[in-house]
Order: sequence, then structure tokens, then C-alpha cells
Amino acid sequence: MVLHAPGNMRLEERPVPLVGVREVLVAVRAVGVCGSDVHYYEHGRIGSFVVQKPLVLGHEVAGVIIDVGSDVSRQRIGARVAIEPGVPDSECEHCRAGHYNLCPNMVFFGTPPIDGAFAEYVTTHERFAHDLPANMTLEEGALIEPVSVALWACRRAHLQGGEHVLVMGAGPIGILAMKVAFALGAGEVTICDVAPERLALASKHGATRVINVAEHRLADAGIRAHVLLECSGAQRALSDGIRTVEPHGTVVVVGMSPDEEQRVPLAYLLQREITLTGTFRYAHTYRDAITLVSSGRVEVQSLITNRFSLEHAEMALQATRRDPANLKSMIVLGEVKE
Amino acid sequence: MVLHAPGNMRLEERPVPLVGVREVLVAVRAVGVCGSDVHYYEHGRIGSFVVQKPLVLGHEVAGVIIDVGSDVSRQRIGARVAIEPGVPDSECEHCRAGHYNLCPNMVFFGTPPIDGAFAEYVTTHERFAHDLPANMTLEEGALIEPVSVALWACRRAHLQGGEHVLVMGAGPIGILAMKVAFALGAGEVTICDVAPERLALASKHGATRVINVAEHRLADAGIRAHVLLECSGAQRALSDGIRTVEPHGTVVVVGMSPDEEQRVPLAYLLQREITLTGTFRYAHTYRDAITLVSSGRVEVQSLITNRFSLEHAEMALQATRRDPANLKSMIVLGEVKE
Amino acid sequence: MVLHAPGNMRLEERPVPLVGVREVLVAVRAVGVCGSDVHYYEHGRIGSFVVQKPLVLGHEVAGVIIDVGSDVSRQRIGARVAIEPGVPDSECEHCRAGHYNLCPNMVFFGTPPIDGAFAEYVTTHERFAHDLPANMTLEEGALIEPVSVALWACRRAHLQGGEHVLVMGAGPIGILAMKVAFALGAGEVTICDVAPERLALASKHGATRVINVAEHRLADAGIRAHVLLECSGAQRALSDGIRTVEPHGTVVVVGMSPDEEQRVPLAYLLQREITLTGTFRYAHTYRDAITLVSSGRVEVQSLITNRFSLEHAEMALQATRRDPANLKSMIVLGEVKE
Amino acid sequence: MVLHAPGNMRLEERPVPLVGVREVLVAVRAVGVCGSDVHYYEHGRIGSFVVQKPLVLGHEVAGVIIDVGSDVSRQRIGARVAIEPGVPDSECEHCRAGHYNLCPNMVFFGTPPIDGAFAEYVTTHERFAHDLPANMTLEEGALIEPVSVALWACRRAHLQGGEHVLVMGAGPIGILAMKVAFALGAGEVTICDVAPERLALASKHGATRVINVAEHRLADAGIRAHVLLECSGAQRALSDGIRTVEPHGTVVVVGMSPDEEQRVPLAYLLQREITLTGTFRYAHTYRDAITLVSSGRVEVQSLITNRFSLEHAEMALQATRRDPANLKSMIVLGEVKE
Repeated sequence: MVLHAPGNMRLEERPVPLVGVREVLVAVRAVGVCGSDVHYYEHGRIGSFVVQKPLVLGHEVAGVIIDVGSDVSRQRIGARVAIEPGVPDSECEHCRAGHYNLCPNMVFFGTPPIDGAFAEYVTTHERFAHDLPANMTLEEGALIEPVSVALWACRRAHLQGGEHVLVMGAGPIGILAMKVAFALGAGEVTICDVAPERLALASKHGATRVINVAEHRLADAGIRAHVLLECSGAQRALSDGIRTVEPHGTVVVVGMSPDEEQRVPLAYLLQREITLTGTFRYAHTYRDAITLVSSGRVEVQSLITNRFSLEHAEMALQATRRDPANLKSMIVLGEVKE
Repeated sequence: MVLHAPGNMRLEERPVPLVGVREVLVAVRAVGVCGSDVHYYEHGRIGSFVVQKPLVLGHEVAGVIIDVGSDVSRQRIGARVAIEPGVPDSECEHCRAGHYNLCPNMVFFGTPPIDGAFAEYVTTHERFAHDLPANMTLEEGALIEPVSVALWACRRAHLQGGEHVLVMGAGPIGILAMKVAFALGAGEVTICDVAPERLALASKHGATRVINVAEHRLADAGIRAHVLLECSGAQRALSDGIRTVEPHGTVVVVGMSPDEEQRVPLAYLLQREITLTGTFRYAHTYRDAITLVSSGRVEVQSLITNRFSLEHAEMALQATRRDPANLKSMIVLGEVKE
Repeated sequence: MVLHAPGNMRLEERPVPLVGVREVLVAVRAVGVCGSDVHYYEHGRIGSFVVQKPLVLGHEVAGVIIDVGSDVSRQRIGARVAIEPGVPDSECEHCRAGHYNLCPNMVFFGTPPIDGAFAEYVTTHERFAHDLPANMTLEEGALIEPVSVALWACRRAHLQGGEHVLVMGAGPIGILAMKVAFALGAGEVTICDVAPERLALASKHGATRVINVAEHRLADAGIRAHVLLECSGAQRALSDGIRTVEPHGTVVVVGMSPDEEQRVPLAYLLQREITLTGTFRYAHTYRDAITLVSSGRVEVQSLITNRFSLEHAEMALQATRRDPANLKSMIVLGEVKE
Repeated sequence: MVLHAPGNMRLEERPVPLVGVREVLVAVRAVGVCGSDVHYYEHGRIGSFVVQKPLVLGHEVAGVIIDVGSDVSRQRIGARVAIEPGVPDSECEHCRAGHYNLCPNMVFFGTPPIDGAFAEYVTTHERFAHDLPANMTLEEGALIEPVSVALWACRRAHLQGGEHVLVMGAGPIGILAMKVAFALGAGEVTICDVAPERLALASKHGATRVINVAEHRLADAGIRAHVLLECSGAQRALSDGIRTVEPHGTVVVVGMSPDEEQRVPLAYLLQREITLTGTFRYAHTYRDAITLVSSGRVEVQSLITNRFSLEHAEMALQATRRDPANLKSMIVLGEVKE
């Protein structure tokens, strides 16, 4: 399913990709729709990443290995896998320092000019195809990608048990950040958004408290957060959110704003010695995210709002864009429950 | 209930303690029996701490505030509280550095020569009487003390989600360490012990796997742990446990051995750059431990094996000593469920 | 020497302060002039701190103990001490967590409404009068205060040896930050400012490189910093400085801007997972700052530009305000070299 | 210069090694003699590493690039380089986590069965040949290896400025650990050994205090260390050293004992919540070690006790073994000062 121009996507026949010596060929079974897919579909770009030639979107993906390269054990054929969508060069200083998510040569599904997983078959390095336990569905496997985003954000917050976590933004990342925060010991999680539908979903998924910041000033809510997970990308969420954080607390910015600079209440932050950092995707999270989901600690299946065949991927993108209550559309191919 | 000599304990009438200006007077309702209470009862000493004059034992305690000193708000009267049993001097360099558990002038319940809580009334500094939420029982309140031990151990292990945690020792601390480890994101927890009854309890309380190390060599079990929580105090548990730890893993020693020195497989540890540390009680844990219990993340009520009145405290100590399946005896006074 | 209104300061006779039971009475011998003193002198306020009644300025202070309270050893009389100018309450949650610099009840010299050290005598808690080794002058003792600011900033940057540190602002704090960064292992330190006099001083004091950012764009300088110490309070210094920081680098903001919010290049920061934090004064630094100075690792004496008697304190403030090359004016009383 | 059996080493003619596509060919100019070289020479093994076929020793090496593989810029020819002697596989989980020193497939100079640098020419991966600044000698370049050991030990101790560091063992590693500790901000360094010659050298190289622990009990010396760097491998040094460490201090074990297990005063460690860890070689240190040496922060040239030609390498090994005052013998080839 190829994006040719904003709003112009069509199914094409292409040859099954060749599998490299260290690669696996995966029959795609489930691909989640992410906000960034929608953004490329609508605008043809995200910041400096511009769709300049036809692009296949999709990076939240799971499937079944159907072939392997010559240096990969043939025993992997048949394995059900979640695919970590970015393959770094393993050579640069960031890879060597363990920060492979910052690799400047990262090859990442569905990010121009790299084709993604809205397709029947994809290949990847064998190490980035993570085996799924028998008790996990392939849809859950596809959702390991956003769970990884959430897990990485929580890890950078260094949760220690009992904290009050404030999450700005009740989209899929915000709700997964809440779920992972609880799984890592957060005592309570407050979620803020401006869409009542999303706040209702956040409550349903276990938020201790939800606040509609279109209707109520966050400053009046009496929040004293130890950790702020900013998942909205909104200037006001950042400014107001930081002002609830306790001395020596932590701010992790996950949501990317379209603006290059944002205003930060620096005087507030200095006087409390708050630490602010941001996340860029994730590193070393897939195996642990799978463990958290398979052990039941992070329930994800119920995030799926609706399912579409590959032919109807465009409808999935539109549903995600239109409906704030549409947490996660899933593209399914073949026997996803197998 | 006063310990006069090993094995010699009797009920005495004493005046209700006077409450200091910053103190609260607490009517004791629930006191857990800890292994250290049993040890003082049997041996009259633990290491350099020797019972040299009659001593009241008991430091896992909850109750109701019935009076307050002149500098404490009278609104606290009636509050149900868990008492943090150690009050530091707040002045020494360790207190000022935030490590109040290392305060050399610590006044700690039931540790010679300080009387503990096997009594109808105790006083403490108001700050160490932590309010309990309405949904928590006073028995749960008493158990916040061992939950704090477990939480502190897990905090020093810096769990990040998904880890394999190995717990040596399936006594109450080992089992609570497991529960807290899960609450802080551990992926799986393996527990080892030599008592089948305890391993059965560990399984019942949720252990991913239990290993009877009296029957099986740990080295043969194929364990690759990211974190070892040593809660047994046994030399072999320490030696064998460390040898399961992954490179850059962490060892936290909670269980105190009677020996001043223990053998550590240092070559193994160096070649893997494993970090080993120990815990001494806990600091800054009570509020968060209460949150973890009250929110249902750490279930403790089911640890209670049996209950005794204050008159029968000696039976509680003996039950704890005799029966490996006796996880937690509780001394209850008055209306503990109130 | 009392500030009555902006620009209006005069010498007054007051009784020698009474010494509390845990306090020492110090005959002041050297007081450094800080930018904040100048700011109060000129504007009568810094942010929310407003001079509402006559105020004695001065918080960089050393002297000789001449009397002690009843709970302090009389052996301390005669001791040469650097006074840590802020005394926290030792009771609040921040003090108990080891973060006493964030104590909301801090009593800090020369910060309204607390009188400072432009005076013959001051009292303080005995613990905040730090003994000086025999090889240190009292002027060096007074400079332990700004060295503490610099040390705290460097500590929060977690230097590990060999780093490229970028310091924005070549005032006394910037230059001391450079010196302490070198003492803690920084490989090279680049300093930026807009005043050529200050950059010349920075070079003289050992900067690897200086950049006049009034004349050159920092972006063109090819700087790749591991750590940014922002000591200028200027918006552009912050924005441009952050854009030189390497992935997983650290930004420590020391300089307070008059504005409540500042613009931060958040997209840059996120994509590199840079950590930003700020400092508020310092904690637990005095003893170590004294060690660094007395061992010759951080040379401070040469920062002193000129000396004034207490009667001429106003001239010292004006000299500091007027002349960018005036790094540190010192008020001296009695035999400062004793 | 090939080791055939313990005490049996002879010069052989071998072809110049072929340079791989990503490799450089280095004309060796300076190789330091390390205690481990001596140990292989005497005993033919170190622990599980056994010399089973003829082996070239030597891993502290610097030289000049004289040829490069097809994927390496020819501009590197002529470069003066320090060679990091271990090349990891860059693929295993430890490499990917940034801990390449723990790579199980490490290829390390002079460690059986990999030949080392007591030779005219060696090859290595281009990334492990680190350029030397013009102001550094090739002998200093060779010494970057033990400086790296010391830097890695200090990094794992997380020095923050002003600490009292206790170093056990005044051999070349102990003395370099001291020098690096000072360069990273240590306030004072005490060194212990049993050889008066070594203690005299430690004093000459700047130790704040030296203690002959063959003559004085360390426990009587009144040491309160924040950090212990154990560089001796001796049981008593470890036991006694730990007992000087302050609460929340850190123990870094660098020296490998021949015994698999060592006794650790665990009760002491627990009651003070001391952290103990070990180092295995180093990671990510070469560039920074070069910076520390080239900037004059860590002076190493004066460690060199004597120099030998390659033909006399055996004399260098014997000199190192025999004479405790022989800190560092250097094998020099060609124009080492070029």
C-alpha cells in the first residue's frame, strides 16, 4: 500500500523482497496505525523527513517468519515475531555506546525513504525480529512498538515505586505510558487531555484521575507530580505540566511539537532542580516490553478500536485522524490469531 | 510484654508513656512478629546488639493515635497510622545526606535498649506515624515495615521493567521482595529455599519458578538473573546466587549473616562488572509502601498465618520459630479491623 | 552597611548579634561582592525577593569565631571559618531527602528579609561555619561560596574525565565553573561571552578556547560539547548553547534569567536525548570546595580584582556593576591575611 | 618475540601481517610491560587463560600506521596511534548495550591464543588505532592502556570532587589510579602497599599519604575513605580496605586475585550500604585517557623506569618481576620519539 502524495495511497504489486544473509523474510499479519503514519498521509512530511518518492507506511508490525538468509538458523522459519522497526548501523559511536536509537544511519520502517510494513512481506535483520511467546497474539506483537515508546519514556523517568505520574495527552502513547508507569510501580497516574472521549478512555484503562484541561486550569487541580510524561506535543501542556512537578522531579518529553523551540518555565525548573529530558524512539526495550505484555502486566489488546484489511489501510488512517476515540486501528492480513 | 532473658517473657503493668511535644501517643492494634524478635527471644542478642536489661520487642506496628504533644495538630487524634519504627537524630551527616537509616543515633523499636511495640501504647515522633488510607487494615499497616524492607531492596536494584529477579530465601522478606519486585516491573521472579513449605508458599504468592536448593544445584537450573535479592543470610545462597547474575547485573544483600565476613565469587563478579550492595533497613519508603499496598499492587494480607493476643505473644514467637510455613504471626489488640 | 533603598546604602551602628545555643559569633574578615548584591543595590529586588525593609547585603563570607553558644565547644573560638550562608530548617521533606538547598524555610544571608555579612559581626549555626585549613586565606574562604555554586553545577553534570565543556558567560561564576570543571577532569573548556574583557580573563584563567558570541555565531564554531554550563542567564546563550551539545549530553542551567519562561530547542534536545537540569545554590559542597581550593586544584585568589573597606562597600558594588573586567571585589575587615 | 613455554621466549622471523579491509598496519614503536605479561612468561597461564601454543605477548602499544586496508582512508598512513588492544565483535548483546569490554568474543592482544605486540608490526581494526596529538610521545601512547584501566576504575567510582580515595597497591595500576583520581577531583589519595620502594614511588608521584601495611595495621591509621580502589589482588587489602570505607561509599576492585572467591566483610558493607563493584579492562576510555595525558592532567612519562629493545624483551619482563621499584619497563623499536 503505497503513499504517492498526501491523501493519495494505492495498492501495488511488487516482488517479494529478497532476504539478506543475516535477514528474515516476514509475512506481515498485523500492523498498527500510528499518528506519524497519519501525518505522512495527510502532509507528506514530518519536520525534516519529507516523502519525496512513493513510500510504504507502517512500523508497528508483527508477523510470521517464512524464509531466512543463509547466515540465519532455518529453525526460525515459522516463528511468530514482533519486528523492531529500526535497524541501526551497529558501528557508529552512538551504537557502540549503547544508544542505538540515536544512530544517524538508522533504517526505520515507514520513514522516508525507507518503506514500511503496510505490505504482505517485509525483511529485517534477524536480531530485530523478536520471538513472541505462545500466549501473545500477533496484534499484541504489533503493539510492542508503542509499548516500547512508553517503556523507554518510563525508564528515563527512573520510577522507583509509589510515584504520582502526570501524563499529558490521552492518545495511544499517553495511555500506554500510563499502563507502563503502573507496571513499573507508579502509585497514581493523572492524565490530561482536551478531548472528553480520550479522557473517558483513559479512565476506562485505569487512570487514577483525568483532567480536561480545555475546561479546567491544571494549576487549580492541586497536582503534585513526581514525574511528568509529556505525550501531547502541545506548548501549554508542557508549560503547565512542568509547573506541577515536585522538587527533584523528572520531566520526560515524548511528544514532538512541530515547533523547533518551545517555552519552558525555566525559573520554576531551576528553583526545584527538576530534570528534563526527552526520548527519541527507544533502545533495548523490545524483549522487556514483550515480557510485560505476555505476563499480563501491560494489557494492550483492548486498545484496538477496529481492524482493516490491507486494501482498506486508507480507511484506517482516516479513522485514526477523524476520531479522537479511535485509539488504535489495526491492519490485519491472513490469520492474525494463529 | 517484656523479655527478661532468653525464653523468659512476661506481661507487666507499666504507666502509659508520656507524649513529647512533637510526639503522638498510639494505641497499638497490630504488631507483626519478625525473625529478629524471635532471635532476641531465643538468644538475647543479635550481633553486637545485646539485651542487657528487660526489653519490649516488636517493631512492625500500627495503631490509632489517641493523644498528641503540644506541637502536634490535635486533628491527628483518631488517625489510623503505621509507625515507622526508627527515629533518627535528623542532625548527623547521614541524616543530612538523606540516608537517615544510617544514623548512628537511631532510636529503633525493639532494638536494645529501646523498647518496642508488644505493648498497649507507644509514642513516636509525629512524622513517623504515617496515616493509613481508609481502605487499608491496621494489620496491613503493621506489615508496611517488612514491605519497606523489600521496597528498599528493590529500589537499590534499580528495576527498569522486564528483569529476571532471583530471590534467595522464601521467608516473609523474600516473598515480599518478590511481590514488590513484580510491582516494580520485574518480568519473572525465581525463588530458592531449602524448605518445601516455604517454596509452596512462594508459588502460591506468585513466584514464576521455585527451586529447592537442598535438592537441586542452582548452577544446573539455567538461571540468568539480572538482579539477585539475597534474603537468606546463607553463605551458599550468596555464592551460588551471584554465579547466576548476568553481566552488569546487580546483587542486593538484604539477609544478614551471623558471620562478619562472607565469601564472594569476586572473579565472577569482576569479569562481569556486577554491582553488589546491601541494605540496612530502609529510608523514605513508608509513604510509597503504603501507596503500593493500598492501591492493590502489593497484596500483604494473605501473608498473615495466625493471630495472637498480646498475652500470647510468646506463642507467636514460638510459632514463627518452629514452623517454616508460618510466614507472619500477628499480635492483635482491640478492634484491629476498625 | 545597610541598604535602605535602591542606590541608598549607609553604615549604621547596631548591637553585636546575640549568639544562639548552637551558634557561633563570627568576626567578619572578608566578604565577596556577588552579582546578586549588585542587583539588590540597583533594583531593590530579584524576582519575587523584594527588599521591603533595610537590609544588610553580602553572603560570600569568611571570618574568625570569637564566641560560641552554650551547646558549642569553646575550642572553636579562634577558628578561621568560611560561612555557608544558608541555614535550612533540617526538618522539611527536602532537608530529609538530602536536598537542603531546596528547603522552603531557608534562612539565607543577604536575601530579604535576612541580613547578610556586610557587617563586623554575624552569627550562624555552628555547622555552617566550616573550618579553613591553615594554608588558606580568609579571602579564599569567602570565595568558597561561588566555588560551591560552580562545584554544584559540575556535580549535576556528572563529569567523568575528558569531556568538552562549554561555559556560557565569563563572569565569576562562569570562570569558576571552568576551573572546577577542569579540576573534575574536563578535557577542554570553551567559554563564550559578549565582553572582550571577560573573554581575555577567561583565557588568562585557562580556557581552552574563548568565543565572542557578539561577533561570531556559535553555530559556526564547530563546537561539540558534552556538557553545557549555562552561566549567563541569556536567552540566546541557552538556545545556541544547547545546539552544540552532543547526543546524551547534559545541560546545567546555573544562570537565572529575569524571565519566567525561556525558549528551549526541544526538538534538538529530544532527538539527542539530552538531559537538561538546573541548579539552585548548592548542597553538601562546602567541605569539598575547601578541599579543592586548599589542595591547589582550584585557584581562586587571582579572581580578586580589588579590595574595599566596609565603609566603601558601595564603591565595591559600583565597581562590580560598571566594569566587566571586575571579576570579584572583596570587602575586607581587620587583618584578613591572619 | 615469541613465548614458547614458561621462561622460554625467542625472537622469530614471521611475515608482516596482512591488513584486513577495515584494518591498519602499525609499525610498533613502544610497548609497555604489564604484570600480566610477566605472569604468562613465568607461569604460562592466568586463571583459565592458558598458553597452549607459541604466543606473542604485549598489549600496551603505540606506533605509526604504515598501511591501511581498502576501506580505510589512506590519509591515516603516517598517523601516530595508541592501539586499544581488544577488538570486540560489535554484535553481541554486551557490545550493543555499550559494554564492549564484556564481549565474549573479544580478540585481545597477548591473551592466548591471540598474539600481542612484542613485534615489529601489528594490525588492528582502524577504530582501535587512536590518533595521538602532536604533543604526546609514543611511549605516552603505549601507556594509555594502563591509564585506561585506571580511568575506568575511577569512572565506576563516580568521583564528584573532594573525596578521600584509598588505593590498595602501589604498583603501576595503583599509582595511575591515584593520578587519575586526582585528575577527576579526588581531594586526597592514600596508598597502601607492603613494599617500601613502591610507597616511596607513590609519594614521589603525589600520594597525600602512604601506609606500609606490612608494618602498620590499616585499622589504626584513622582512614575514612569515600572510595576504595583495590589494585593489589590481596585478600587482606580487600578486607581491611573495605573496613575504612564510609557509609554510602564505593569499592571498586581492579586487582584480580588468583582465588575464585574472596572474603568480604559483608556485615560492615551492609550496615553502611556500601556499593562494591569490579572492573574488567575498560570501555570507551581511550580518547578521554589521551586527552587527560595530552593536556597534562595525568603525567605518565615519569613512570617509565627503563627501556629495552625488542631483542631484550625478556630482560624487561625479568626486571619487572624482580624489582618492586620497576614501575614500567618499555620495549622501544625505531625512533620512538618521532
